[in-house]
Amino acid sequence: MRNKMRPQEVIARKRDGGSLTEKQITSFIDGVCDGHWADYQISALLMAMFVRGLNGGEQDLLTRAMLHSGEVLDLSDIAKPKADKHSTGGVGDKTSLIIAPIAAACGVAVPMISGRGLGHTGGTLDKLESIPGYNVNVSTDEFRRIIKRCGFAMSGQTADIAPADKKLYALRDATATVPYIPLIVGSIMSKKLAEGLDALVLDVKTGSGAFMRRLEDSKKLAEALVATGRNFGVKTEAVVSDMSQPLGKYAGNGHEVFECIKILRDEAEPAMGPTRELSIELTARMLVLSGIEKDIEAAKAAAVAKIASGEALECFRQNVEMQGGDVRVCDRPKILLARGLFECVIEAPASGFVAEINTFSIGNAMVEVGGGRTKAEDGIDHEVGFEALAAIGQEVREGDPLCIAFCRNETQGGKIRKKLTDAYTISGESVLRPSLVREVVK
Amino acid sequence: MRNKMRPQEVIARKRDGGSLTEKQITSFIDGVCDGHWADYQISALLMAMFVRGLNGGEQDLLTRAMLHSGEVLDLSDIAKPKADKHSTGGVGDKTSLIIAPIAAACGVAVPMISGRGLGHTGGTLDKLESIPGYNVNVSTDEFRRIIKRCGFAMSGQTADIAPADKKLYALRDATATVPYIPLIVGSIMSKKLAEGLDALVLDVKTGSGAFMRRLEDSKKLAEALVATGRNFGVKTEAVVSDMSQPLGKYAGNGHEVFECIKILRDEAEPAMGPTRELSIELTARMLVLSGIEKDIEAAKAAAVAKIASGEALECFRQNVEMQGGDVRVCDRPKILLARGLFECVIEAPASGFVAEINTFSIGNAMVEVGGGRTKAEDGIDHEVGFEALAAIGQEVREGDPLCIAFCRNETQGGKIRKKLTDAYTISGESVLRPSLVREVVK
Repeated sequence: MRNKMRPQEVIARKRDGGSLTEKQITSFIDGVCDGHWADYQISALLMAMFVRGLNGGEQDLLTRAMLHSGEVLDLSDIAKPKADKHSTGGVGDKTSLIIAPIAAACGVAVPMISGRGLGHTGGTLDKLESIPGYNVNVSTDEFRRIIKRCGFAMSGQTADIAPADKKLYALRDATATVPYIPLIVGSIMSKKLAEGLDALVLDVKTGSGAFMRRLEDSKKLAEALVATGRNFGVKTEAVVSDMSQPLGKYAGNGHEVFECIKILRDEAEPAMGPTRELSIELTARMLVLSGIEKDIEAAKAAAVAKIASGEALECFRQNVEMQGGDVRVCDRPKILLARGLFECVIEAPASGFVAEINTFSIGNAMVEVGGGRTKAEDGIDHEVGFEALAAIGQEVREGDPLCIAFCRNETQGGKIRKKLTDAYTISGESVLRPSLVREVVK
Repeated sequence: MRNKMRPQEVIARKRDGGSLTEKQITSFIDGVCDGHWADYQISALLMAMFVRGLNGGEQDLLTRAMLHSGEVLDLSDIAKPKADKHSTGGVGDKTSLIIAPIAAACGVAVPMISGRGLGHTGGTLDKLESIPGYNVNVSTDEFRRIIKRCGFAMSGQTADIAPADKKLYALRDATATVPYIPLIVGSIMSKKLAEGLDALVLDVKTGSGAFMRRLEDSKKLAEALVATGRNFGVKTEAVVSDMSQPLGKYAGNGHEVFECIKILRDEAEPAMGPTRELSIELTARMLVLSGIEKDIEAAKAAAVAKIASGEALECFRQNVEMQGGDVRVCDRPKILLARGLFECVIEAPASGFVAEINTFSIGNAMVEVGGGRTKAEDGIDHEVGFEALAAIGQEVREGDPLCIAFCRNETQGGKIRKKLTDAYTISGESVLRPSLVREVVK
């Protein structure tokens, strides 16, 4: 039985700084789903929440209502511990495709429901779709069958999973109500809790390519996510990781899958080091939280071993096959890298040290050439990409290449050349390379 | 040339407590009118304005942008001073129909653009329409012609007058962003300033039947309205008047017009005293601000004289004729009171003094029987009505009639009997009758 309070009454309470009751929050989320609340009423309440704030209790109630606006997966017929990783998004952030098969190879079931890229950040679904034939729209039954067979499945958010979030997210994006922690927590956790998890590791990005640029904000978000996970009975940890520069060697959909497979094949190039390191760190935390390994060092060793033995790659191959993808990418990942692209090479304008990289700008430049989207309905070019050649702290000489953008043609290259050049700050003084893991929130 | 800023950018600025620039406010109001801003973006900004606040400069910019979203009447071909009165609304508040003809008879041109009733309050247009044939939808040319002939015209807000306000008002009503002074000021003043006035008198209600119940809030609103009028070069004064009980003898559309005509005919019954007194007070202020009379006492005497001489009634008769109404109401106002209605008489449950009247409740009871509307598209029953028999401060004995509701039938009466009974608080201690004019803001 859905309760229908007058939207104005609920809005007015938050407008005046009051706390919302469970009944009011449930009535709101019910109204979002059944259309009883108009878009303009929803956005008025979102703004009132943003400015007046939600306390911890309200945040949990909101998350719970959003979670129960849809289906919660019942994976109780899978005997393994269920765990997942979620990242708040960045540029070149591709660890999901590495973590899921390693964790699966270690005995965890990973029901990974992911999103598409929006704005300067990429999305797991888009990356997967650069594998020819790969299908991210699988039914719940299919999803369960794939997990049983290869330990993990990758799917988009179906209409059944947290439908309230879909609606709210679109409105928040249009009404400047995205960057508020309780709303972010509700959005992330309503989807992740719908996966029916035992354990969850969150990768909260910080720095110029993250939604939260300042470390203290990222840390606050990490703490709120962990607290919420706990309150819902899921073992939850968060890592605040560096996004002051693109992660690893590549950004761009096909390029990132290439990097992932190279790592799964234990053929990581030096520039791919951070991607590998962060993937192992996050996987290890999933293994410990799931009770598969007793401490983080043992868990890291187990993850490394599953790469070395080829078992992680094998899990990935099985998954690609079951989700309809071309398994040849596992043996010859190079087929993911298109030939004949225009290489827009950005050179250092002066000698010195790479002091800062505007990663947000780099992400946006890639969107401009079709590698991402500004609107949810935009198409995407899976083959354009970005290669990082100089990382923060690295010494360069004038004219040294800083990065390469792989564009469709020279015109595209011309369009983004300035933006990419401006993204790099070269300093006369030496600069420390930022550490990859900035904080761990347990 | 309209400027188009990203709505999110403007919203985010106010969300974070910043002041909006002229360009941002203009871009907002342009977007409201041309559809560039979606409803959910408008309501997000309205909520941010409500919670974060608008300073005096922003309030004037908003009013100006709303005013210039539409036509400003050019009445420069009418040599008389142009003046109007606006009330914030209440129950039984019917002074417009008395003030306009008296002021017209005194030599002021009154271009009165009014609204319809919504919620517990009545609206001038609805009242006028209880006169058979009276047409409130007149063109601008017609409007001007009527003013020239009889000194005043009464019309609804056309699509050309402050169209931004129409849109904003509907959204504010649905999103709990009505009761915020700068938004109220923008809404009222954008319409009133569009009348091309020299002088404006505002009647800001206070008490249980007003939108602002507390005297200090009503006073603040009055001050903001007066300041805005001045900033736009219009001589403006406000009276804060009592709405702790229905004004005068009757509420309900036909009943109120009856009361107005009785007063214009100089046949006011004792219970109609407050209506007459407030009408004369407000008219007198219009006359002084317009330069027609030199002080308030002389102006009141002039108003009283125009009633006594029948000139005010004559102006009213001419107006009714020009706007298509049945002029017989001027001679036999009783034809406005329908026969055969069910009289629901509410009796005092105990002996004592009438201490409080929940006027809001009385207004809502009349809406329930069809005398008002809850949604803008609702129809209205002009004949149902309410008669006040006991005013605040009056001593009553158990069983004495407190009021009568004139309903369509007994069923209706049964529906509202409890609400009306509960609206009266009888006290053992004597209570002072509240003064009609609580404050004057110049």
